[in-house]
Amino acid sequence: MTSSNNLEISGLHFITQSWQGSADGFFSMNPVKNEKTDWQFAEATFDDVDNATKLATDAFKVYRNKSASEKALFLETIADEIENLSEKIIFAANIETGLPEARLQGETGRTCNQLRLFAAHLRNPIDLRYVDKAQPERSPVPKPESRLSYLPIGPVAVFGASNFPLAFSTAGGDTASALAAGCTVIVKGHPAHPATSELVARAIHKAITKTDMPAGVFSLLQSSKPEVATALVRNYQIKAVGFTGSLNVGRILADTCAARSEPIPFFGELGSVNPQFILPELLSSSAETLSITQVQSMMMGHGQFCTSPGVVIAKSGPSLERYKATLAEELKQQASSSMLTFGIAKAYQRQTQAFIDNDSVMLIGKGQSPAQPHHTQPLAFSVDSKSFVQSESLRQEVFGPCVVIVEYQTDEQALDIADILEGQLTASIHGTESEIISNPELIESISYKVGRIIFNQMPTGVEVCYSMNHGGPYPASTDVKTTSVGVRAMDRFQRPICFQNTPLNVIPADVKDSYQHLIVK
Amino acid sequence: MTSSNNLEISGLHFITQSWQGSADGFFSMNPVKNEKTDWQFAEATFDDVDNATKLATDAFKVYRNKSASEKALFLETIADEIENLSEKIIFAANIETGLPEARLQGETGRTCNQLRLFAAHLRNPIDLRYVDKAQPERSPVPKPESRLSYLPIGPVAVFGASNFPLAFSTAGGDTASALAAGCTVIVKGHPAHPATSELVARAIHKAITKTDMPAGVFSLLQSSKPEVATALVRNYQIKAVGFTGSLNVGRILADTCAARSEPIPFFGELGSVNPQFILPELLSSSAETLSITQVQSMMMGHGQFCTSPGVVIAKSGPSLERYKATLAEELKQQASSSMLTFGIAKAYQRQTQAFIDNDSVMLIGKGQSPAQPHHTQPLAFSVDSKSFVQSESLRQEVFGPCVVIVEYQTDEQALDIADILEGQLTASIHGTESEIISNPELIESISYKVGRIIFNQMPTGVEVCYSMNHGGPYPASTDVKTTSVGVRAMDRFQRPICFQNTPLNVIPADVKDSYQHLIVK
Repeated sequence: MTSSNNLEISGLHFITQSWQGSADGFFSMNPVKNEKTDWQFAEATFDDVDNATKLATDAFKVYRNKSASEKALFLETIADEIENLSEKIIFAANIETGLPEARLQGETGRTCNQLRLFAAHLRNPIDLRYVDKAQPERSPVPKPESRLSYLPIGPVAVFGASNFPLAFSTAGGDTASALAAGCTVIVKGHPAHPATSELVARAIHKAITKTDMPAGVFSLLQSSKPEVATALVRNYQIKAVGFTGSLNVGRILADTCAARSEPIPFFGELGSVNPQFILPELLSSSAETLSITQVQSMMMGHGQFCTSPGVVIAKSGPSLERYKATLAEELKQQASSSMLTFGIAKAYQRQTQAFIDNDSVMLIGKGQSPAQPHHTQPLAFSVDSKSFVQSESLRQEVFGPCVVIVEYQTDEQALDIADILEGQLTASIHGTESEIISNPELIESISYKVGRIIFNQMPTGVEVCYSMNHGGPYPASTDVKTTSVGVRAMDRFQRPICFQNTPLNVIPADVKDSYQHLIVK
Repeated sequence: MTSSNNLEISGLHFITQSWQGSADGFFSMNPVKNEKTDWQFAEATFDDVDNATKLATDAFKVYRNKSASEKALFLETIADEIENLSEKIIFAANIETGLPEARLQGETGRTCNQLRLFAAHLRNPIDLRYVDKAQPERSPVPKPESRLSYLPIGPVAVFGASNFPLAFSTAGGDTASALAAGCTVIVKGHPAHPATSELVARAIHKAITKTDMPAGVFSLLQSSKPEVATALVRNYQIKAVGFTGSLNVGRILADTCAARSEPIPFFGELGSVNPQFILPELLSSSAETLSITQVQSMMMGHGQFCTSPGVVIAKSGPSLERYKATLAEELKQQASSSMLTFGIAKAYQRQTQAFIDNDSVMLIGKGQSPAQPHHTQPLAFSVDSKSFVQSESLRQEVFGPCVVIVEYQTDEQALDIADILEGQLTASIHGTESEIISNPELIESISYKVGRIIFNQMPTGVEVCYSMNHGGPYPASTDVKTTSVGVRAMDRFQRPICFQNTPLNVIPADVKDSYQHLIVK
């Protein structure tokens, strides 16, 4: 049986195929018990940062030349090794995050599928490549031959997210897409689940050895200190950053990237309330079903999903009263629970208390009473559209199981609400087909605020596929032009290069005439 | 006959289909005579900036919904109207820039071809779009249908470049690609050619009227003041910036964009020395031809091309001596000339004087003596590889007809040179096929420094086509992942959006099943 003891957590950093440092720094926490675990971790020093980035740069020169199928095998082997270690990984993640085993089992599957999807794309790419043929006879000047290829961007710093300790952490989407693009990776492990990170790094360690990848292709630095995070993104050898987390921390890192003597791209996902617009006809016919679905979605991971539906927008009236009544009823059955970290619980309590104290906000439903001070209670509020439009604080993300129902009277107010929204990862529109078709202005307005627009489905559950976009206008993403989920997440970590008049033997594979999706003009 | 008088330059800003302001600000300069022209221009105020951005935002809501063929017609009509006005435009540009008529004729053609290429792409797009089919039976959770489409990013601020008063200015590549992407545009006209900008804006004005585009789809603000530039990029309604110019000014604007409460992408092209690596075998067989080609390329626009070859890297020895001798001989026949602006001339004189004063740099060739103090003389220098690697100032761009020949002794030194280079728009490798093939390490190293790698051709003359990449690592571009020339320049001004479970009538045209390059998984 797996126990804390036989996980053999070293507490060390993983740098160039060895475990380094001195495990005398921070402890990981058990958020359910709200107490320290037995696992103590090293605190990365600035020297560790310099060392890891130097090795990542050396490794980059080797790794970038591995063939697509070699990189694919590496990703597949990481997935295999994570599966081999999954019992231990899930055991540790359960202790460090409080997330239930079944959820962590699912997340392990998702993490491995993600790695394998990138591998499949490398083996059989679905991409477009352009070649312009030479026109030596063109007048007044001949046209040269040119081919548009891509290069990996360089060593990438990845920051693990607290809320997906596997799928958006050590071997999560950012790491997988950077490795797939041909970049080397340094993960700054999230201090809320360092043992989980160590075990996943152990799986990557095995995959590096088995597939003969260069030492330094992947490193893990353990740290609980903000200054290590900024030192990492400031290091001149780092060429891009992947981050999922809070607006505060994300903005500090984004500003650090922009202020470098060589500025680098910062791909940060910094928050979203994922508004749910419910149109009147469907609300009237399906108020009860819609509110049950809302509760199910907002309770996933106890509301700690980046796509959690935190705002519902609907027209006042008897249908909305039915919706709210069902929602209150459903919410009553939902347990209070610990959060991923004590800090997240405190922030939730502070933000929801501000709603309770706000005269324009009504508390309309709540879950079971918290058994412990560090538990958070599922809550539902309602507010009129005018107050929502006027008060910025009502529109800010509350990370946790909370929903604000915004009630409007006129269609124009619905448009005002769409207009005032900040950038969002997603928004859903729930309506009958005919009322969706008859609201083009609202739908258009919403589409310009979001990375993904959804019809009659909930936003939780982000599909890892070719057509996914997980991003959106700031602050949903710090780079509206990229996605952090799906095959196209790779695009963040590669950049175009034009090969002009290139001898046959030097033409890169992806723009050779044998390439599948090559368009020759 | 065209004369200054019958151009009827108003000196005003073009905002929402009318000419506004008071033409009592700066005069444009005649750089050949080094004196003011008769044309005086309005200085944009902060109110003008606010007004133009507000109108660009209003117009955006209309313009983004124009069909692809309506936008194409708009671009084609701008090209037609520029051609209709070309005599006047070229007359004004010749006075304001000193560039010869033939060159300006060619640049007009390029500008119109560029607009028509984007139009052709809109009419018959060569793009990939992804659709993931629904899998309602998938377990444990059904897969939703999703489609990856694109939206224009919003109003764009464009800064005209001094060195291409047509092709990279008012209706140049940035404006054309932003309009093609569905964005509205505010041009901050370059103060070195305001009359040229006004005439081009007049052509756009006609095209807006003829094709029934919204007032505010395009504005021109005249200004000679840096604070107007920063006010424009700081305005919250601006969603992206296109810029070609100096590292200094570009970096100030880039930092302003990054520091906004909503940071926005800044697409800046900030300088490049475009190194020419000549390998020994070809140097031995073709020293004379190579140096003649070098002089022709570096003298284009009197060295004021962003792709001007400013550094040549070759092995010491008799072949290089022959190359240098021919170069000196060729250079002797080259005239000195005024530059685009007096400021550019001064900077050139200052930088080349520093080379002359530098003990490790040898002056090896020069053009005809300057007839005027504001003229600049074509110059060639040589330096040993060690000094070049050690001294950052030797590696900086000298904007104008200057080349530095870097002489190395060993192949390792050639690699050191490639390694120390900053990001470049281009680099060329001149060599026989066999020596190119036998230098993979050098070619790889160079490729990671450039946006375009060229074999046995000169970098000047940037082809406007599908496979072009005009960008590269910083400071060549502030966004290594984008190009400012070619069809893909549009990508800077649009961003992905995922449509999930979308009713048939709401699916955007570019991801409907009738789309040409749709890949359904």
